[in-house]
Amino acid sequence: DARFDPKEHQHLRYNPLRDSWILVSAHRMKRPWAGQVEKPPEEQIPRYDPRNPLCPGNTRANGEVNPDYESTFVFDNDFPALQPDAPDPGADQHPLFQSKAARGVCKVMCFHPWSDVTLPLMKKEEVVKVIEKWVELVEEIGITYPWVQIFENKGAVMGCSNPHPHCQVWASNFLPNEPALSDRCQRKYYEKHGEPLLLEYAKQEAEKKERVVVESSDWLAVVPYWATWPYQMLLLPRRHVLRLNDLTTEEREGLADIMKRLLTKYDNLFEVSFPYSMGWHGAPTGPHLKENNSHWQLHAHYYPPLLRSATVKKFMVGYEMLAQEQRDLTPEQVNNITYTPYTTKLRTALV
Amino acid sequence: DARFDPKEHQHLRYNPLRDSWILVSAHRMKRPWAGQVEKPPEEQIPRYDPRNPLCPGNTRANGEVNPDYESTFVFDNDFPALQPDAPDPGADQHPLFQSKAARGVCKVMCFHPWSDVTLPLMKKEEVVKVIEKWVELVEEIGITYPWVQIFENKGAVMGCSNPHPHCQVWASNFLPNEPALSDRCQRKYYEKHGEPLLLEYAKQEAEKKERVVVESSDWLAVVPYWATWPYQMLLLPRRHVLRLNDLTTEEREGLADIMKRLLTKYDNLFEVSFPYSMGWHGAPTGPHLKENNSHWQLHAHYYPPLLRSATVKKFMVGYEMLAQEQRDLTPEQVNNITYTPYTTKLRTALV
Ligand SMILES: O=P(O)(O)O[C@H]1O[C@H](CO)[C@@H](O)[C@H](O)[C@H]1O
Ligand SMILES: O=P(O)(O)O[C@H]1O[C@H](CO)[C@@H](O)[C@H](O)[C@H]1O
Repeated sequence: DARFDPKEHQHLRYNPLRDSWILVSAHRMKRPWAGQVEKPPEEQIPRYDPRNPLCPGNTRANGEVNPDYESTFVFDNDFPALQPDAPDPGADQHPLFQSKAARGVCKVMCFHPWSDVTLPLMKKEEVVKVIEKWVELVEEIGITYPWVQIFENKGAVMGCSNPHPHCQVWASNFLPNEPALSDRCQRKYYEKHGEPLLLEYAKQEAEKKERVVVESSDWLAVVPYWATWPYQMLLLPRRHVLRLNDLTTEEREGLADIMKRLLTKYDNLFEVSFPYSMGWHGAPTGPHLKENNSHWQLHAHYYPPLLRSATVKKFMVGYEMLAQEQRDLTPEQVNNITYTPYTTKLRTALV
Repeated sequence: DARFDPKEHQHLRYNPLRDSWILVSAHRMKRPWAGQVEKPPEEQIPRYDPRNPLCPGNTRANGEVNPDYESTFVFDNDFPALQPDAPDPGADQHPLFQSKAARGVCKVMCFHPWSDVTLPLMKKEEVVKVIEKWVELVEEIGITYPWVQIFENKGAVMGCSNPHPHCQVWASNFLPNEPALSDRCQRKYYEKHGEPLLLEYAKQEAEKKERVVVESSDWLAVVPYWATWPYQMLLLPRRHVLRLNDLTTEEREGLADIMKRLLTKYDNLFEVSFPYSMGWHGAPTGPHLKENNSHWQLHAHYYPPLLRSATVKKFMVGYEMLAQEQRDLTPEQVNNITYTPYTTKLRTALV
């Protein structure tokens, strides 16, 4: 038997947050690519576009006029997937035709009045404002709803339908599949090992160093050992923190700082405004606020679609949809993403 | 309370094959779309391209020359994600850094010598040949490997890197996540209800009719009650059949027929060669051949990416990746896909 080398030999890795496996076949990066090529992102986004419903002072689909906001701006999604008052489908169902009521709220949150900035291009104080607004929303909406999902789709390739810097908040009266699974996995680990899964994981990664991409005294950004997407990232505080609203003032500032550094690295990678979907997972809220959730650790997932360049993405298709997720490079191969602070030149190239 | 109307009111539906829920928010179809628009598929694919490694007589990346094949043609993938001899990562691992050996084979199977046809455009006898080759491969490779995944990625938008009509076969020494989950769900249902989940489901759908898209005496194609993708389809035999190689000669012919009709409906829908990823799920093989797998029922999943037109797809992004899958129209709204047999004109429009 040859000696096992993860860069050469395909293998499976275990994702303890989802209790599932991922196929790592690093040698696949060598295959030629003649498939679909994405359009690179729009080069010149105007700072203000009179037709963009997210810009200050503009009128939205429902006739409402946005204020002349100067920092963040939150409003109810004009086409919400979740509404507070949907009727119940009723009980007494065949086991193969089961449905349940789904209630909730969907909000949109603009990060900045300008359309031509992104989080890494914003000032640190401006990013702190975004984080403070997240904290406020989790606190407010979390009083009633068991799950408050904050997420950002960035870039047209990630289905983002508006280039203005923004995220969404969808809260529901149910614990969605992904957090429900993550809750079960973290609880099981805690019961068995007596410590939170992600705290132990962060400790291990901080020692090993080989997958750490950015770190500070409060935060750690790492390509998880079980990453699915080529440049997937896990961002988490070093201290045991259950939810965004448990962060100290210092930790919020540290978060703004590490987010800016991480996202600048992303932009550096292929010299493009890097697309991704990201979102926060923290302990459930609403009725769960009264429970013991010590098994939880706050974290953000970043899922970027690109594989080889600004225009060639990883397709999670046939084998991945039908059988199992598969990646074409090891998580260790992506830890050395370089960091160049924004210069005017780079900034112009990236906006 | 208003009366519940699935076309108007968001709700959750249960997927009994994956033990998970999906959010159905039909009213979201009304939202305007200013996001990414896909390139429509290439219009003129030459019947023979001297540079295409899948055409008869051409030389592939590894120097091998394809025979002048006249029906199907199977060869080993030149860039396999799974190889038969990968070494073992070794035991004695931290619970958060677990890896396992992955071994297997990856094959490519051309459907036809011509690059300018697709399954719905091929003659019925030619599609029967494809099915017979599938049967042969499952039988042969299934002797040793517990899972033989047959899948087709069709269309550049589904990550297909070659327009020549073909599918892939990836077999592994492990049961991948998706079939492992499906196995657990089908087994649990069988233990509780004493009959195979999908047989009972097919019986119910054949009576209800509202989600049936094509049917014959042997086969049923239905938009599952729990469909995730807008035009997702479940194709299954009416008789209790565990694996592709258990189909009778008649059932194979019936399959060729229903596949042609289903895929022609897909092509009709947006008047485009319809993209999708599809694959077969049957009872596990290899060491599982000796077990009782009565809980299993053979079926194919079709996952097409399009939502609104030939160029606007459904993005499974932020909320879907972080929280839960969400669809913008009900499965019942897609059952009336019209069927027009191929005319020369339509054929020219679609190839
Ligand atoms: O094997 P292909 O066609 O080159 O590659 C395609 O299918 C594979 C299996 O689903 C995926 O892993 C790739 O991302 C996709 O581009
Ligand atoms: O809400 P948007 O930006 O219009 O839509 C985007 O994000 C949603 C939530 O992840 C997805 O359901 C949509 O498919 C996607 O295009």
